[in-house]
Amino acid sequence: MSRLENILIKLKDGSITVEEAALKIKGQPFEDLGWAKVDTQREMRQGTAEVIYGEGKTAEQIAGIVKTMNASSQNTVMITRLSSEKADKLSKLTDIKYDGVSKIAYTGEKAAPDGLGKIVVATGGTSDIPVAEEAALTAEILGNETVRLYDIGVAGIHRLLANRDTIMSASVIIAVAGMEGALASVIGGLADCPVIAVPTSVGYGASFSGLSALLSMLNSCASGVCAVNIDNGFGAGFLASRINHMEAKK
Amino acid sequence: MSRLENILIKLKDGSITVEEAALKIKGQPFEDLGWAKVDTQREMRQGTAEVIYGEGKTAEQIAGIVKTMNASSQNTVMITRLSSEKADKLSKLTDIKYDGVSKIAYTGEKAAPDGLGKIVVATGGTSDIPVAEEAALTAEILGNETVRLYDIGVAGIHRLLANRDTIMSASVIIAVAGMEGALASVIGGLADCPVIAVPTSVGYGASFSGLSALLSMLNSCASGVCAVNIDNGFGAGFLASRINHMEAKK
Amino acid sequence: MSRLENILIKLKDGSITVEEAALKIKGQPFEDLGWAKVDTQREMRQGTAEVIYGEGKTAEQIAGIVKTMNASSQNTVMITRLSSEKADKLSKLTDIKYDGVSKIAYTGEKAAPDGLGKIVVATGGTSDIPVAEEAALTAEILGNETVRLYDIGVAGIHRLLANRDTIMSASVIIAVAGMEGALASVIGGLADCPVIAVPTSVGYGASFSGLSALLSMLNSCASGVCAVNIDNGFGAGFLASRINHMEAKK
Amino acid sequence: MSRLENILIKLKDGSITVEEAALKIKGQPFEDLGWAKVDTQREMRQGTAEVIYGEGKTAEQIAGIVKTMNASSQNTVMITRLSSEKADKLSKLTDIKYDGVSKIAYTGEKAAPDGLGKIVVATGGTSDIPVAEEAALTAEILGNETVRLYDIGVAGIHRLLANRDTIMSASVIIAVAGMEGALASVIGGLADCPVIAVPTSVGYGASFSGLSALLSMLNSCASGVCAVNIDNGFGAGFLASRINHMEAKK
Amino acid sequence: MSRLENILIKLKDGSITVEEAALKIKGQPFEDLGWAKVDTQREMRQGTAEVIYGEGKTAEQIAGIVKTMNASSQNTVMITRLSSEKADKLSKLTDIKYDGVSKIAYTGEKAAPDGLGKIVVATGGTSDIPVAEEAALTAEILGNETVRLYDIGVAGIHRLLANRDTIMSASVIIAVAGMEGALASVIGGLADCPVIAVPTSVGYGASFSGLSALLSMLNSCASGVCAVNIDNGFGAGFLASRINHMEAKK
Amino acid sequence: MSRLENILIKLKDGSITVEEAALKIKGQPFEDLGWAKVDTQREMRQGTAEVIYGEGKTAEQIAGIVKTMNASSQNTVMITRLSSEKADKLSKLTDIKYDGVSKIAYTGEKAAPDGLGKIVVATGGTSDIPVAEEAALTAEILGNETVRLYDIGVAGIHRLLANRDTIMSASVIIAVAGMEGALASVIGGLADCPVIAVPTSVGYGASFSGLSALLSMLNSCASGVCAVNIDNGFGAGFLASRINHMEAKK
Amino acid sequence: MSRLENILIKLKDGSITVEEAALKIKGQPFEDLGWAKVDTQREMRQGTAEVIYGEGKTAEQIAGIVKTMNASSQNTVMITRLSSEKADKLSKLTDIKYDGVSKIAYTGEKAAPDGLGKIVVATGGTSDIPVAEEAALTAEILGNETVRLYDIGVAGIHRLLANRDTIMSASVIIAVAGMEGALASVIGGLADCPVIAVPTSVGYGASFSGLSALLSMLNSCASGVCAVNIDNGFGAGFLASRINHMEAKK
Amino acid sequence: MSRLENILIKLKDGSITVEEAALKIKGQPFEDLGWAKVDTQREMRQGTAEVIYGEGKTAEQIAGIVKTMNASSQNTVMITRLSSEKADKLSKLTDIKYDGVSKIAYTGEKAAPDGLGKIVVATGGTSDIPVAEEAALTAEILGNETVRLYDIGVAGIHRLLANRDTIMSASVIIAVAGMEGALASVIGGLADCPVIAVPTSVGYGASFSGLSALLSMLNSCASGVCAVNIDNGFGAGFLASRINHMEAKK
Repeated sequence: MSRLENILIKLKDGSITVEEAALKIKGQPFEDLGWAKVDTQREMRQGTAEVIYGEGKTAEQIAGIVKTMNASSQNTVMITRLSSEKADKLSKLTDIKYDGVSKIAYTGEKAAPDGLGKIVVATGGTSDIPVAEEAALTAEILGNETVRLYDIGVAGIHRLLANRDTIMSASVIIAVAGMEGALASVIGGLADCPVIAVPTSVGYGASFSGLSALLSMLNSCASGVCAVNIDNGFGAGFLASRINHMEAKK
Repeated sequence: MSRLENILIKLKDGSITVEEAALKIKGQPFEDLGWAKVDTQREMRQGTAEVIYGEGKTAEQIAGIVKTMNASSQNTVMITRLSSEKADKLSKLTDIKYDGVSKIAYTGEKAAPDGLGKIVVATGGTSDIPVAEEAALTAEILGNETVRLYDIGVAGIHRLLANRDTIMSASVIIAVAGMEGALASVIGGLADCPVIAVPTSVGYGASFSGLSALLSMLNSCASGVCAVNIDNGFGAGFLASRINHMEAKK
Repeated sequence: MSRLENILIKLKDGSITVEEAALKIKGQPFEDLGWAKVDTQREMRQGTAEVIYGEGKTAEQIAGIVKTMNASSQNTVMITRLSSEKADKLSKLTDIKYDGVSKIAYTGEKAAPDGLGKIVVATGGTSDIPVAEEAALTAEILGNETVRLYDIGVAGIHRLLANRDTIMSASVIIAVAGMEGALASVIGGLADCPVIAVPTSVGYGASFSGLSALLSMLNSCASGVCAVNIDNGFGAGFLASRINHMEAKK
Repeated sequence: MSRLENILIKLKDGSITVEEAALKIKGQPFEDLGWAKVDTQREMRQGTAEVIYGEGKTAEQIAGIVKTMNASSQNTVMITRLSSEKADKLSKLTDIKYDGVSKIAYTGEKAAPDGLGKIVVATGGTSDIPVAEEAALTAEILGNETVRLYDIGVAGIHRLLANRDTIMSASVIIAVAGMEGALASVIGGLADCPVIAVPTSVGYGASFSGLSALLSMLNSCASGVCAVNIDNGFGAGFLASRINHMEAKK
Repeated sequence: MSRLENILIKLKDGSITVEEAALKIKGQPFEDLGWAKVDTQREMRQGTAEVIYGEGKTAEQIAGIVKTMNASSQNTVMITRLSSEKADKLSKLTDIKYDGVSKIAYTGEKAAPDGLGKIVVATGGTSDIPVAEEAALTAEILGNETVRLYDIGVAGIHRLLANRDTIMSASVIIAVAGMEGALASVIGGLADCPVIAVPTSVGYGASFSGLSALLSMLNSCASGVCAVNIDNGFGAGFLASRINHMEAKK
Repeated sequence: MSRLENILIKLKDGSITVEEAALKIKGQPFEDLGWAKVDTQREMRQGTAEVIYGEGKTAEQIAGIVKTMNASSQNTVMITRLSSEKADKLSKLTDIKYDGVSKIAYTGEKAAPDGLGKIVVATGGTSDIPVAEEAALTAEILGNETVRLYDIGVAGIHRLLANRDTIMSASVIIAVAGMEGALASVIGGLADCPVIAVPTSVGYGASFSGLSALLSMLNSCASGVCAVNIDNGFGAGFLASRINHMEAKK
Repeated sequence: MSRLENILIKLKDGSITVEEAALKIKGQPFEDLGWAKVDTQREMRQGTAEVIYGEGKTAEQIAGIVKTMNASSQNTVMITRLSSEKADKLSKLTDIKYDGVSKIAYTGEKAAPDGLGKIVVATGGTSDIPVAEEAALTAEILGNETVRLYDIGVAGIHRLLANRDTIMSASVIIAVAGMEGALASVIGGLADCPVIAVPTSVGYGASFSGLSALLSMLNSCASGVCAVNIDNGFGAGFLASRINHMEAKK
Repeated sequence: MSRLENILIKLKDGSITVEEAALKIKGQPFEDLGWAKVDTQREMRQGTAEVIYGEGKTAEQIAGIVKTMNASSQNTVMITRLSSEKADKLSKLTDIKYDGVSKIAYTGEKAAPDGLGKIVVATGGTSDIPVAEEAALTAEILGNETVRLYDIGVAGIHRLLANRDTIMSASVIIAVAGMEGALASVIGGLADCPVIAVPTSVGYGASFSGLSALLSMLNSCASGVCAVNIDNGFGAGFLASRINHMEAKK
C-alpha cells in the first residue's frame, strides 16, 4: 500500500482531518538542501522512494539526504554504489544495513514479498555476481521473492538447461553477463516472461568494458528482451520489481 | 488461452484422446524447410508465435514459412520489416493484411485486447512515427489496447505535461525518440509503470544513426526504464504486451 | 573598462605622454619565457586576460607566468584545474585565493558584476557540482551575477519546473549534466536566452566518460543550445560572461 | 517586440478587453493535429516561432503545420532541410520563398535587422557554403545583418588575416568548417565576441563524416567558442540571433 | 597430392629429367602482369592456389589472372565476391562454373573430398546463408565434405540441440551469425572440435554492420573458438579445409 | 585417451561393472557450489577439462573449484590470469605449479606431447612475451611440443625470414603481436598450416589497447589466419592444441 | 626555379624594373571571387601552386579558379577528385589533360623531373591502384621520376622481396594499402629512405572503410614511416615531391 | 659516414683484408638472445642503429641489448620511454646519458649536426613539451641542428606569426599539439618544407587521449603534412632526421 493511499484511508476513517491530509499531500514536493533537491514525494508519485546514488557523495551528504527523506515519512531508503569505507562512516551517522557484495545499504526494512511471482537472477559467470547481487537485493528490498542462478553461462549450456524449470517458473528474469553476453539471448529464447539483460564490464580486450555484452544484448534475436546500462544491477532490479507488481489499471 | 491449455482442456473434457493430445504436444518442435527451421511450438512454449523478420527473405520464402506455421495451428502470424513491394507479391501468395507505415503484415486476426491496461506509445517527433507504429501495431495484434501520443518531444515540455494524465494512466509506456532521446528520461521521471525506450535513427550529424539516442536512453537517470535496439519498434511492442499480460505465477 | 581604453583615456587627459602610451600598447604582445610564451596583450585584444590551465604545469611554472602577467598590468589572473596540493605550493610563491570545489585559484579581485543580467548555472545531479562551480566561479571572477540551481535533473521534472521563474529570468543559462544529459534539452525548450550545455564525465558504463551526455547535447532538439567540451566548466563560464556583456557594436 | 507584449499593450491602450487578452494568452499552447502537436505559443514563450524541420515530412504535412501556425498569428514560419522537389510541391499548397543553396523556405517576411551588431559567417572552404548559407539566412530571417567570409581556411592563413577587421567588428561569429575544423580555433583566438563553431561533414577518410571537425571544435584551445551539431547551420544562426539580440534583463 | 610432390615423383620415376624438374620448380615465383603480380607458386608453397578476390577487378583483369595461373599448371582457380553481371562477362572470356548465392566462380573441378571428417556450416538465421554458402562452397572446392545446418539461432535453442549429434560428429564447425552472434559461443560450448566463427553484417541499429557479432565472437567464453573478418565466409572455409587436412608433420 | 574411453575400456575388460560405469558417466554433469557450477564432465564431453579464469576469484574460491574437479577425476586443472600474490595464497591451499611470466598455475602434470607436430609461438616484440607464454604453456600442458620464436617483428623482416624453416615445419602457428599486428599477415603468407593470431595490448596512442592489432589481424590479406581476443594467449594455445590433435572422424 | 626567383632574376638582369617587380610580388595575395578566395601567391610562398579539390565544385567554378590562377602566371594547375563527367564539362571550358584512373586533371605541362632520386609508389593489391595513381601522377606533375610497384602485398612476401633493389634505390617510398595495411611496416623495415603510408578504404567488414589500415600504419613498429589521410594519394605525392626536392637551407 | 662505407674504405686503403671485411659484413645480421633478436646490422642496412623501446623491458634486458649492439660496433644506442627509476638502475649497468624530460637515454655521443638545415620543433602548449623534447633530442642524437618554438598554439596566432621567419627557414618542421591539433594545419599553410605532425594525448574530455588531435592532423587541409602516432616524438624526430639528410640517389 502506498503512502498516498495510506493518507487517504486515514482521512476516510477519521484519524486525520482534511486539512492534515492536504498538508501531507501538498507539502513541497522536494526539500531543497541547497546542493541537493530531495524528491520527498517520489514514493507518492511513482510508488517507490528516491534511491540515493552513493558514488561521488560524502557520507555526510548521504546522511543528510536520508534524514530529509525519513522526515517526510519515507522509512526505507536505499543507497547504491556505497564503498565499504563510506558505509563505515555512514553507519556512525545513521542506522543502516550494509551488504558488501552488492555495495547496497538501506535503512528500515525490506518490504514483504508480495509480487506476482519470483524474480530469477541469472549470471554467466562468477565474476558477474556483484552486479547480480545489486539487482537481487534491490528487488528484495522492494518486496520481491528472488531466486539466484549463478554461473550458468552458455559455454556449458547443460548448466543452463538443467535449470530450465526455474527459468520457466519465473515471473521476471534478470540475465547478468559480461564478455559476449549470449546468456540473455539463450534465456530469452526459452522463457515466457520479460527478460531484463544487464551487461557487465567483466572481460578484457575486445570486451571494451562491457560494450561487447551491451551490443549483444541489444541485438538479441530473442523477443521479450530489453537492456539496461552496463553494470546497472539496481536499474534491472527496480524495473523487475515494477513488472512483478503489475496489476490491472483501467 | 494458450494452445497448450487448449489441448489439455480438450483432453480433459474428452474431445480428444490421450494419444491425440500427446501427438499434438510432442509433434516435432520445428519444421525443417532445409533453408529454414520453423519453430512450430513457440506459441506453446513461450505464449506467442514466432514472428517472421521480412528483410532479406523473398515473398516466396515468407509464404512458405507462413503456410508451415498455419499448418501447425498458428493462425495469427506477423511479418515485420516488409516493404510495400514485397507485400504486394506476398498478398498474391497468401492472405495478409498489410500496414504501410509500420511495414507490418499479418494473417488471421488481431487478438482481442485483454491486458491489464493500456499501452501508451509516445514519440518525440513526427519522424519517429513509423517506428512507433511498428510498436503499436505489434501490441495490438498481440491483444492490447494502445494509446498514441505523438510529437511530444522535450523541446516543448508543455506538450508532454499536458498529457500527464494519459502517462499516469498507462500500464506500460513505449517512448520512441531519435536525436538526443531525452523523452525516455522525462517520461521515466513521471510515470509509475515500466517504460520501454526505443531509440530511432532519426537525426543527422552527431546522432550517428541512433547511437546518441541509444546512449541517452541507457544512461537514463530515471528508474524503471529499459532500452531495446535502435528502430526496434517490434521488440518494444512485444515486450510491452508481455508485461501487460503479467499474471500471478507460483 | 578595458586596459586599452584605460591607456587611451590617460593619454587624453594628459596623465601619460604619447610615447608612454605607444610603449604600453606596442610592447611585445607576448613575453617569451623560453618554455612558455605568455600572451600579455590578450586582455587588450580580447577583453579578458589569458587564463592559465593548471594541469601539467608545476607550481613554479605557474608562479612564473602569473608574475609575467602581473608585470604587464594584468592583475586578475585565473588558474584552472589546480589540485589542492599544487595550490598549497603556489600560495607560498604568490598571493592567490583558492576554491577547492571548482579547483580554481585567482589573484587580484573578482570584477564587480556589470552584465546584462544573471547567469543561471543548473546541474542534473549533485555529482555535477564541481564542474558547475568551475563555470559559476569563472563567471563571477569575470564580473557576472550568478544563480545556482543544483540537482534539478529530469528524472524529477517538477524540481525543474518549480524553478521555471528563475530559468525564465536568466540572461544566459549553463546546463551541466552527465549521464544522459537531457537537462540541456528540457531547459532549452523552456528558456528564451542562450543555453550553454556542459556534458560531464559523471556516470558509468555506457556513459563512456561523458560521450553519452555530449552527443545528447549536440543533438538537442531545442533551439538556442550549444555545447562545450566534456567537464569544461571554465569554457562555459567564460562564454556566458562574454554573452552577458554583449553591447551594441557598429 | 514580441507577440505577448503586443497583446498586453493592446490591452493597456484599450483596443482589446481583458477577456480577449486572456483568451489570446491562455489559448491552448499547442494545436493537436493527431500526428503532430504544433507549438502555437513558442513565439510568446521563447521569442521566436517554432521552426519546421522539413526532412521526413511530406509537403502536405508541412503545409498543414504552416497553416496552423499562421492561424495563431505566427506569420513568419521557417522550414529547414527542404529539398527542391518538396519545395516545388509545397509552393503549390502555400505561399513560400525558397532558397536552393541553404534549402530553407519561409513564409512572410524577413524581420528587419535590429540586433546589436553584425553576425559574421565564415567558412573554411567552398564546400562548406551550403551549411553557412543555412546559418546566414536563418539569422537574416530572424532580424540580423550578416557578413559572409567564405573560403578563408587556415591552409592559407593570410586570407583569414586579411579579414581581421571584419572579424574584430563582429557581434557574433559563426565558424563553419569540415575536415580538421581549425578555423574555429584560429578565429576564437582573434575575436572578442562569442564564436559558434559548426562542424561540417565535408571531407573524406578520417574526417568520419564530420567527427574530426566536431572533436577539434570541442577541444578548441581558444576561449569563447562553443559548438553545435555537425551541419547544423540553422542551430548556429538561431543561437547567434539570440545572442545578437541580448538586452538588459533584471 | 601437391604439385611439388607431383613433380618430384615424376622425376623419380623418370618421366621428367632433373633439368625439367628444376625448371618447373625454380620458374619465377610470380608472373608480373604490370598491374598485378600473380603468385604462380602459392600452390607449391602453401598447398592451395592463390584465390582471386573479384571485387574491384574487371572481368578482363580476372580472365587475365586466370589464364596466367592455368598456364602455370594451376587448374582449379577460385574467384570470390563476383557479381552475377561480372560472372556473365567472365563466362564469355574463360570457362567457369558460377554459384549465384555464394558469388563464387571457379575453373576446373572441385577436389575430391579427402579430409579427416566433415565440415559443418551452421547459421543463426536465413539471412546469413550467402556468407555460409561462401564458406561451404570454398571448403568443397578445396576437397571437403560439408554439412549445412541453417537457421539454428539461439532464440530457439531446441533447434540447435536437436542437431547435437551433427555438431558432435563434425571435424570442424563454421558458425555464421549476425546480430548478437551468440551461436558461436553455444556451439563452442558443445563441440569438441575447432570452431571458426564468422560474424555477418546481418542486422540493423546497434549491430553496427557486424561489429556487435564480431565482438561477441571474440569475447566468447567458450574455448576452441576463433574468428575471421565480418562476412568472410571464404576465409572460414579455407581455414576449415586446412584444419580438416591436418596430418602428422615431423 | 579421454576419460570416457577410459571408463568404457575398464568396463569392457571387466575392471568395473556396468553399474559403476553408468554411475561414473551419468553422474551429475556439474557440481553446484552455490556461487559456481563446476562443469565436471567437460573433459568427457569436449576432451579437455574446464579451465579456471583466475581474475576476479579469491584463492579460496579457486581452491574450492580445483578440489571439486579433482574429486571428479580431473587431475590436471589449469588456472589462468593468476597474480603472483594470489598464487602464493593458493599454493597454501592446494598443490600447484605456478609460472610467473604467463600467470598460469596448474595441478597435476603436463600431458605428454602427442600431437601431429610442433606448435610454433612467435612474437613481434619482447613486450608480447607474457601473452605468448600463456599460449605456449597452455599448449604444453595440453600435450603439445612447442617452439618459441620471439622478437621477429616485421620491422626487421630478415629476423623472420631467417626462421623460415621453423615456420614451414610448424603444425600450427600462434602469431602474437601488438601495435600494427603485421606479423600475422606476413607469417600467414609464408606458412602452409593454420595460423592463430593473438593481438596484444602492447603499444600506445593509436594502438587503442590492442584494437589496432586486432583489426589488422581480422583484415589479414593472407588466407588461413584467424584471430582470438586481445591478449588471449590461453585461447590461442587451447585452439592450437585442438588443431594439433586432429584425427580422422567419420 | 620558383616564380619568385624568376622575378628577382629578371629584375637583376634588367628585363623588368623595380616597380614592375614590386607589383608582381606585392600584388594582392589572393583573388576574391566572392564564393572563393584563390591563393594566387602560394607558388611564390610555398613553392607550388594551390591545388583545386574537385569534389563539391561545379565545372564552372573550377574553370573560374583555373582562369584566375592562370591570370596570375600559375600555368600548371592541378585538379584532384574530378569525376569523368565533370572532366568532360570542364574540358569544354578550359584546356585540360585528364587521367581517368587517378581522377586528376591538369593544365599546362608536367614539370621536368629534377628531384634527388626516384619516388617508388607501391601497393598491396590491385584495388589500391587508383589511390596510387593519384600519388604517382601528382609527383610526376610536380617534377619527379616515379617507379610503380603494384600488387606486392605481404600475403606473398616474395613478391615484395623480389623488388628489394627497387625499394633500396628509392629516394622516397609511398606505400599504399588497404585491409591490414602491413605493407608500410614491412617496407619501412627494409628501406633507408622516408616512407609515406597511405591507407585506402579498400576492404570490407572490420576494415571499417580504411580505419584498420590507418591504425596499422600509425602504429608501425618501423621507424621512418608517417601516414596521411585514408585514400589521400595526392597528399602523399605532394609530400614525397617536397622531400625529393630537399636542398641545403642555411 | 655509415659503418658499411667505413669497412669498405678500410679495405680499400689496406687496413683490413678482404676476409676481415667479409666477416664484418656477413656476420649474422642479428644476435639471438633467446628472448630478443638484436638487429646488429640495421645501421649498415638502414643508416641508423636499432633504437630500444624502453617500456616493458627491465634495466637488465636493456643493458644486455646495449652490450650486444656495442659489441657489433654500434656505439651510439638510444633508449626511449625510459622512466627515471629504470634509468637509475640502467646507469649502474652501463654508461648512459639520460634526459628526464624526454625520457631518452643514450650511450656514446650525439652525432655532429650535418643535415641540410635546421629542424624546427614547435608545440601548441607547454604540456606538449615532453613529446617535443623526445623529438628534438632524437634529432640531435642523429646529427641535426634543432630550434625549439614552444607554446605557439593557434589560440594566440600572433605568437606563431611572430616566429614566421623561423618557420620559413626550417628544413623540416615537427608540429606537436594536443587538444584540437590545429597547429599542424596553420604551420602547414605557411611553411615550404615537410611538416611532421605529432598529436599528443594532452587534453581532457572529447580529446579522447589524443584522438581529436590525430584526426585533425590527418584531415589537415594544408598540403605537405603527414602524421605519426599519438605521443610518438621519437618517430617524428627520426623521420625528420632522415629527411634532413636527403641526398641525391641515382
